[in-house]
Amino acid sequence: MKLTWNRFSPGVWRAETGSEPITLTGLSGVDPAPGLREGPEADFPVDVEADETSEFLVLRIPLSDEERIFGCGLRFHSIVCRNTVVHLRADHYHGNDDGRTHAPVPFFVSTGGYGFFADTPDPVSIYIGTTQRLSDKPEVEERDRATDPQWRCYNSPEFVEIAIRSKKARLVVFAGGIGKCVARFNLYCGGGFIPPKWGLKLWHRTGMSMTGRDVLALVGEYEKRKFPLGVIGLEPGWQSNSYPCSYEWSTRNFPEPEKLLDDLKQRGIRVNLWENPYISEKSELFRELKPFSADHLVWGGIVPDYTLEPVRSAIKRHHAKHHLALGVGGYKLDESDGYDCWLWPDHARFPSGTPGASYRNLCGLLFERITSELYRENGRRTCGLTRSGNAGGCSFPYVLYNDRYDFREYLAGLCSCGFAGVLWTPEVRTAANGDEFLRRIQLAALSPMLVINAWADNTVPWSFPEVEDAVRAALALRTKLTPYLYSAFARYHFEGVPPYRSLFMDYGYFLSDNRRSGKLDSTKNPYQEVVQKDITDQFLLGDSLMAAPLEPGKRSRTVLFPPGKWFDFHTGEFVSDGGAKTIEVPENAPLPLFAPDGAVVPLEENGRIEIRHFGTKPGEFVLYDDDGESFDYERGKFTRTVLKSDGSRQVETVPGAGMTPRSE
Amino acid sequence: MKLTWNRFSPGVWRAETGSEPITLTGLSGVDPAPGLREGPEADFPVDVEADETSEFLVLRIPLSDEERIFGCGLRFHSIVCRNTVVHLRADHYHGNDDGRTHAPVPFFVSTGGYGFFADTPDPVSIYIGTTQRLSDKPEVEERDRATDPQWRCYNSPEFVEIAIRSKKARLVVFAGGIGKCVARFNLYCGGGFIPPKWGLKLWHRTGMSMTGRDVLALVGEYEKRKFPLGVIGLEPGWQSNSYPCSYEWSTRNFPEPEKLLDDLKQRGIRVNLWENPYISEKSELFRELKPFSADHLVWGGIVPDYTLEPVRSAIKRHHAKHHLALGVGGYKLDESDGYDCWLWPDHARFPSGTPGASYRNLCGLLFERITSELYRENGRRTCGLTRSGNAGGCSFPYVLYNDRYDFREYLAGLCSCGFAGVLWTPEVRTAANGDEFLRRIQLAALSPMLVINAWADNTVPWSFPEVEDAVRAALALRTKLTPYLYSAFARYHFEGVPPYRSLFMDYGYFLSDNRRSGKLDSTKNPYQEVVQKDITDQFLLGDSLMAAPLEPGKRSRTVLFPPGKWFDFHTGEFVSDGGAKTIEVPENAPLPLFAPDGAVVPLEENGRIEIRHFGTKPGEFVLYDDDGESFDYERGKFTRTVLKSDGSRQVETVPGAGMTPRSE
Repeated sequence: MKLTWNRFSPGVWRAETGSEPITLTGLSGVDPAPGLREGPEADFPVDVEADETSEFLVLRIPLSDEERIFGCGLRFHSIVCRNTVVHLRADHYHGNDDGRTHAPVPFFVSTGGYGFFADTPDPVSIYIGTTQRLSDKPEVEERDRATDPQWRCYNSPEFVEIAIRSKKARLVVFAGGIGKCVARFNLYCGGGFIPPKWGLKLWHRTGMSMTGRDVLALVGEYEKRKFPLGVIGLEPGWQSNSYPCSYEWSTRNFPEPEKLLDDLKQRGIRVNLWENPYISEKSELFRELKPFSADHLVWGGIVPDYTLEPVRSAIKRHHAKHHLALGVGGYKLDESDGYDCWLWPDHARFPSGTPGASYRNLCGLLFERITSELYRENGRRTCGLTRSGNAGGCSFPYVLYNDRYDFREYLAGLCSCGFAGVLWTPEVRTAANGDEFLRRIQLAALSPMLVINAWADNTVPWSFPEVEDAVRAALALRTKLTPYLYSAFARYHFEGVPPYRSLFMDYGYFLSDNRRSGKLDSTKNPYQEVVQKDITDQFLLGDSLMAAPLEPGKRSRTVLFPPGKWFDFHTGEFVSDGGAKTIEVPENAPLPLFAPDGAVVPLEENGRIEIRHFGTKPGEFVLYDDDGESFDYERGKFTRTVLKSDGSRQVETVPGAGMTPRSE
Repeated sequence: MKLTWNRFSPGVWRAETGSEPITLTGLSGVDPAPGLREGPEADFPVDVEADETSEFLVLRIPLSDEERIFGCGLRFHSIVCRNTVVHLRADHYHGNDDGRTHAPVPFFVSTGGYGFFADTPDPVSIYIGTTQRLSDKPEVEERDRATDPQWRCYNSPEFVEIAIRSKKARLVVFAGGIGKCVARFNLYCGGGFIPPKWGLKLWHRTGMSMTGRDVLALVGEYEKRKFPLGVIGLEPGWQSNSYPCSYEWSTRNFPEPEKLLDDLKQRGIRVNLWENPYISEKSELFRELKPFSADHLVWGGIVPDYTLEPVRSAIKRHHAKHHLALGVGGYKLDESDGYDCWLWPDHARFPSGTPGASYRNLCGLLFERITSELYRENGRRTCGLTRSGNAGGCSFPYVLYNDRYDFREYLAGLCSCGFAGVLWTPEVRTAANGDEFLRRIQLAALSPMLVINAWADNTVPWSFPEVEDAVRAALALRTKLTPYLYSAFARYHFEGVPPYRSLFMDYGYFLSDNRRSGKLDSTKNPYQEVVQKDITDQFLLGDSLMAAPLEPGKRSRTVLFPPGKWFDFHTGEFVSDGGAKTIEVPENAPLPLFAPDGAVVPLEENGRIEIRHFGTKPGEFVLYDDDGESFDYERGKFTRTVLKSDGSRQVETVPGAGMTPRSE
């Protein structure tokens, strides 16, 4: 079948199969961001062959030998995708990068100069370099594995095949390098969010059944110990019923929620409320939403169909009355990923006709939509946590989290999230010892959202006295970096550049490739042959910093420095001019953080901005600021200040050129 | 929708949806075994509610609080199924019992007195106690997780829901206890196979590129060291091309295959040939089968559609000429499970119209069919190895294996396979040390097929001199147990009782259930609450022995003894009268093996049968024998001898009653 690609904006094309396909971006209700109109124009970058079977719409794109693919949803073990298959599906991550993940985003980008987005909530499988067709046979050179050392698991020609379990879909192609394609994808999905400034502060999620009185005591303890706190997150017990949820205050635990929220507001603390999507018969919403719910229950609660406008309106009305009117700052949506078995089944029927499997890919996204619109309609920014997201949610101020609590996975999530158009937070719960606790706090303090989740264990920053000073230093660094991070979020919003991203996004796939020379170990699996070079333990935050966290218990690690000179952020000293280097890290030392030659980094020190410059090259930084609370920045009410260095430590401050305000 | 259940045989009923559904048993070409006609009759044991969505046929069965489910395919971590979901799909097992497995058998059995079999190659998902419907709401009692200690992840009413991605299916229900239902399922699928006697001996799979000369040298070494060998398995290099395969001899490595096979036959050794399903253009079969192949290639080879009779005939004709005529004993089919990425995609088109995902569930099964029929047509028994199987293959003489090489998984596979209607072998490759090698050999020596797979590392029984005597003892035990095991296979064939099985199959779910009292560990995942008692490290072989293998490196373990007295097989001493007991196992000691009170076990000692009796209770054993090579046993040419003990060590030998010959 023939696809007709229509130019949508510079370097962006769309094609549709079937009439009026239902799309992720359509369901998110968000328009592409104005930044998408920026150039450069480009030629259509890729051959896409389309085909239909009785069950699938199938796309096929050639894959060259040196090409690498990134994306295919949020990943936790690998970033480089080659010779692998993903069956994208919202689920709790269960240990394999096979497509079952918290953000099953049907988008990928290729080092070959294009990005591809299947804008559909229906199940999408992506086969990367694993398929050949009978019609390719003349070009396929057969080799004999037993005798020919040139035999390969995968041989040319190679392809990416995308199979969509639906005949109706909108397809989007982006042109550019991998960074440009990701930025265009993000802008296409509405552009990144800018959190309220309070969202960048320390979050503390309380124990499951804490009362209002307990909360005030906890906040008092934070104040006494001088740990500045930004947000209190109330876990299930704030509600009159949870699992399933009432979304209404427990009169026993929180007899005077309005007074509590006022009190906390006086102390500069916002409140975030935990919810899951399953509604209790005790909720005011139950009777109204029952007719708009799935034919299956979860934890005995109804599963409202968020694709329906009456459902979204009812939830907004309810939440405005019970929460916003009291000053609640936002939400955490739990359990929308389901662990597969804590969810409606694929055969569940939803009133809108959305298949159960497709609604899985939508539930978290649409919760983000409902609550984002609610706050936008009230002129206040929000931000929060969610267990599942998808493409189309880029402008919704949510970060993803999960339960696995594996340090390496949490770190890899930060490396991969930028390729999936989402943000990831490695939340801190408790730890086996002070060293682990510190490493986790240090990582969280450099992440999109700094969350201590004391749901199960009443952890506090001072839980491990032996590292209390080092924890305090990590939290202080977070505060110092606020203007820097806030400016990175502004770039996410206006230009689509993720504030947290893989080294590959800025530096390309700069590693030598030894994927085909894996050594056999026959005490384990002697057939495992595919080894790929990947970087899943270092990430970029903003444009000028690279983090190389240390795993708990480790005192040294290898850091891979991209080409160019690199400097230690903490000391300013020269560290490397590219390549691998082992670094030693003393006990309780800060998280290893590096800046490239010429980097300019603004730091907040006691309420004023101090500017640091690294190395000897000239450089600049665009410092963004606004009121931190409202959407006035969308109408041009923000400042941009260009911080310029000529290469010496002197930095010049230049008022920035106005940016194009976002059109409403 | 209404299902009409038709009685098929005593305690077996069938219902169909759609006209002439394609079934696994139909595709396997096997008729139910005569033993299925045995009683007792029973009432239809279960309520099955049927429903159709746009995509699925959905069945629903009530699940009581104390009920447990077993089956749902070959599993490697757990046997007890409750509050879990499986999406059955042939695949290399990748660490989770989520339905992706080498034998995705859509069958389960309940302690509630029934078995259920969805006789379809199409994708089947089974939701066990994880779904409730809106229509159940009046019966669902809501609780509040934050305040009510009685809150549960799953609450009543509970159900099993089965979703079949197809509107046409045949459903089969069995009545009886779990052992009876499993036996009826196996008989429905044709009854278990009886291997040729040589199949129970030691198998050695050679290095990938071994020549005929190397093979003879190896066999000479076995003879010199007096390690009796039954089968030589030739790995990929025997072919003129492998990955993809020619199925024809390599003239370089095997210039005179006929002479080699004759030579080996003289020494009492059979030859087994490795194959994968993907056919090279160098094969005589290529041109003939290309029109009957999928539209996708694997490793550059065509993927023939085994559901088509011309394909099966062509392969039989080819293999008869190139292999059987020379005396080849059988096959090992590799790579039919695919690791997901080494396979055709789900959207591949097959000439028969079989969907790609359904063909995944069939490929291994149909290879078993082709080769089983080939040998049957020649009047000789075969046996071999396969990487994927399914329901319908019970009478095909194949055992499953995989690559993971995890000792605990290999052991759990032996415990679970009986619930899936398949057999599993924990093959031995190399090891990190002698202790591990010994533990692996000991486990393999008690399994359905004793295989050393030296494909990658040239392992031999004497690879670790420090345990050579202990290895020799393990192999000797295998030989002694041959009549016992052979009789167990006869029961598999005539009565459907698996020779390898879980303790639960004979003793019921006899453990106390603490699945709802899991302790939180917030240094890990603080939300993990479901803990189930399971037994995945002990199994029954035959009717009179229980194995409790030791993991490599361990010198003690806890053994769970079912109610009643148990005796040490090796010493005859009393060990336990039920319950958990820690046993100590000296270095290089044999694998812990126990017999219940009254057990009678025949042992082969220097060509004659020695009979052992354990404990003081009377007992008996039915010793089966036949020519060990032909199918004459199906025409009544076998002997049954009842070995009876009155409780003293005296054993009386009684010629057995004739069994009903299998009708041809």
